[in-house]
Amino acid sequence: MSELTKGERTKQKLVAATGSLLRRQGFHATGLSDIVAESGAPRGSLYFYFPGGKDELATAALEAAGAEWRTRIEAVVAAASSLDGAIAGIVELLADDLEASKFQHGCPVAAVALESTSEPVRKAIVAHYAAWEVTIVEHLGKYGIAAAPAKQLAVVALSMIEGALILARVQRSKAPLVTVGKALRAIVATMSSPTKRRDE
Amino acid sequence: MSELTKGERTKQKLVAATGSLLRRQGFHATGLSDIVAESGAPRGSLYFYFPGGKDELATAALEAAGAEWRTRIEAVVAAASSLDGAIAGIVELLADDLEASKFQHGCPVAAVALESTSEPVRKAIVAHYAAWEVTIVEHLGKYGIAAAPAKQLAVVALSMIEGALILARVQRSKAPLVTVGKALRAIVATMSSPTKRRDE
Repeated sequence: MSELTKGERTKQKLVAATGSLLRRQGFHATGLSDIVAESGAPRGSLYFYFPGGKDELATAALEAAGAEWRTRIEAVVAAASSLDGAIAGIVELLADDLEASKFQHGCPVAAVALESTSEPVRKAIVAHYAAWEVTIVEHLGKYGIAAAPAKQLAVVALSMIEGALILARVQRSKAPLVTVGKALRAIVATMSSPTKRRDE
Repeated sequence: MSELTKGERTKQKLVAATGSLLRRQGFHATGLSDIVAESGAPRGSLYFYFPGGKDELATAALEAAGAEWRTRIEAVVAAASSLDGAIAGIVELLADDLEASKFQHGCPVAAVALESTSEPVRKAIVAHYAAWEVTIVEHLGKYGIAAAPAKQLAVVALSMIEGALILARVQRSKAPLVTVGKALRAIVATMSSPTKRRDE
């Protein structure tokens, strides 16, 4: 691992602060001053590293959030011995994370997706969901689910989880996530017969 | 039908303007000046009718949106001859409405649910989802689905639709709603055998 330069650390701090603020309060409520204050970075560095301002920072923060969650979710999937276990693990991870934030941290992407933002930010969100769809289809394929039904299931799974995160956040309860997790496992059980991955 | 007084009309205009702005851009991006401009009402009337300011207006707008959609959805359900038809009709209604707004109008409640708002606004949202849950359970009961599975299904259906509205809005496509509609109909088909309502 190479050490980060001071500039890279500052950029990271700014992106992390933006991501945290987007999750808690969305795009419009997050001002550049909030980002500077939350990051502890000097104001000048924001304009230096992100000349595109809030749009550029938000796009970077959504990408970083996607990458972070990809790593966390891939770890859960890799540790699971079945598709059912993988889904249960993902839902538990999301529910625990939401609870740990005292139900303040929802999905950063969803919060921004429901606001009117610029076209670059909207495109970053579309790309984010498309990447998740591809990942889900790939994983379902390993469990013997064909591409066409897997694609439908990916949209259903993303919708269920994004919707349950809204309900869970506002109700301050893990229950909606637990409920959709069970429903998702029931749907998948009707679609996949193998209990082991094909690549095992 | 009694005619509305001038004051009631002004209140209605303010609430409708708030609802429209919340759907398009969320809570934080909506300023009192925007509400005044969108409604065409005099600024003084806002403070006169809604001394609680934006919180009070937002709560009223969320309640009005709930009531409006309840009427629209109940009409679709009443016209449907089966549970399958009712679900298809609801999803079509939501998809057409989103498309008609050029994919600007998502769910007003979801947009606000993902922002940090005051406790009264959060409670209004919780009450809103709870009311939908009760309504769904009642309707599923008419098709022979018992209370316990109906309650789970209501959470799943709300999550699916709220999540699909996020994807559809940001992708500017009805496709995610169509996909979750099919999935919901498939789930319901495994749960309900009667094709006619019990009260028919």
